[in-house]
Amino acid sequence: MQVPLQADERIDQLSSQGVQIIQSSQVFAFSLDAVLLAHFVPENHRQHLKTVDLCAGNGAVGLFLNQHLGGQIWEVELQARLADMAQRSISLNDLGDRYHVINDDLANVYDYLPKDSVDIVTCNPPYFKDDQHSQKNPNQYLAIARHEIRTNLAIVVDRMSGLLKMNGHAYMVHRPDRLTEILSTMEASRLVPKRLQFICPKPQWEANMVLIDAIKDGRPGGLKVLPEFVVADENGEYQPAMKELLYGDRK
Amino acid sequence: MQVPLQADERIDQLSSQGVQIIQSSQVFAFSLDAVLLAHFVPENHRQHLKTVDLCAGNGAVGLFLNQHLGGQIWEVELQARLADMAQRSISLNDLGDRYHVINDDLANVYDYLPKDSVDIVTCNPPYFKDDQHSQKNPNQYLAIARHEIRTNLAIVVDRMSGLLKMNGHAYMVHRPDRLTEILSTMEASRLVPKRLQFICPKPQWEANMVLIDAIKDGRPGGLKVLPEFVVADENGEYQPAMKELLYGDRK
Repeated sequence: MQVPLQADERIDQLSSQGVQIIQSSQVFAFSLDAVLLAHFVPENHRQHLKTVDLCAGNGAVGLFLNQHLGGQIWEVELQARLADMAQRSISLNDLGDRYHVINDDLANVYDYLPKDSVDIVTCNPPYFKDDQHSQKNPNQYLAIARHEIRTNLAIVVDRMSGLLKMNGHAYMVHRPDRLTEILSTMEASRLVPKRLQFICPKPQWEANMVLIDAIKDGRPGGLKVLPEFVVADENGEYQPAMKELLYGDRK
Repeated sequence: MQVPLQADERIDQLSSQGVQIIQSSQVFAFSLDAVLLAHFVPENHRQHLKTVDLCAGNGAVGLFLNQHLGGQIWEVELQARLADMAQRSISLNDLGDRYHVINDDLANVYDYLPKDSVDIVTCNPPYFKDDQHSQKNPNQYLAIARHEIRTNLAIVVDRMSGLLKMNGHAYMVHRPDRLTEILSTMEASRLVPKRLQFICPKPQWEANMVLIDAIKDGRPGGLKVLPEFVVADENGEYQPAMKELLYGDRK
């Protein structure tokens, strides 16, 4: 399907997932975080599966889950311009029968979807606290996507948990520097962390991302820490496993 | 110095640290956990440094810190037989001027050392909860060292925090499956986790240990996750970094 593009927009293809995504360096472009989060969700082809992506941005995480998950997928995005990009990417990929965009604050998500009704919730939230001293991008689109200006970890985790059925899975990507707060907040909201994977930019570097898989009302404890995932080699070239996620093969 | 040995005891040498340790497979023998925990403590040669090792067992962690730390070191161990092994190892290494054994429940540690007086507390605590269903070693020495029969995480963390001065460091080795509980318990006790390192038995295996460095009254957040430490290669042979910790070189 042909869709109109705005002046600052381009169409990127994630060849491993066979989807095209409308991107804009001016307002929002997905990054490795979205690719890694989508890959962290195990395949599930149940026809009646219900998945919600919060802080959806231009819809990248949801679209990357296209071949990975069955059923219906809702993308919740506050910023109208980004929600519109997500909607047009859905049209571009002819996925309108499975994908739905909700352009609202995630705090209002129960106006659209009932509590305790969803199997999977994913989220790539704003990473940085909105404190006075934090340097924010002067571009408001990017500032809202990166900083907790319009939402925060407590609300995100509360809505992830509220949407999920018992034993539903919450998948989140975040920064390791807030790990204690993230795990505590999840467990206080009935989301019991069960799998962690740390992402390192290069071998022997500190982790700069963490992937978290939590189960609603899961039995406390039993957390598994997967082998760390190293993105690139010493020279900055992608490792084979990273190439496979991006390009669909290990060449 | 010559010291008497009991029938089941042997003397092991950790060549990298130049100390001899009385071991017994019948009651207690240190393992990699102790070597890794001691190595995780940064060197500090201040002459007035005060260090306490809780759940000291046969005193291995404290003895491995011999060349690493200045000042005085107290080893707190509940089980009289193990405390006696620790005391004899101290004599064996002629370290009686720097090392002190406290044979009591760590809950009573303030009877020996004032609160808010210590720079460093280390602990290799019992890893397993004492629930009805957990299989325990019929050997009571080993059962007490491994299971939370006579102490538990909340008490251990409370005493670690209570002993420390502001900005003192707590170093703990534990199991990743309890990570959420460990980090939450620490933070609730004014110990803010600042560095984590996961230990994997072999490449691409899940972590089976985690090292934690927390600062008393530290500013929340800012947690660093170090590159994972892989103990052995696919064939079970120690990696060069592990050999260096054990034998003092990379051969």
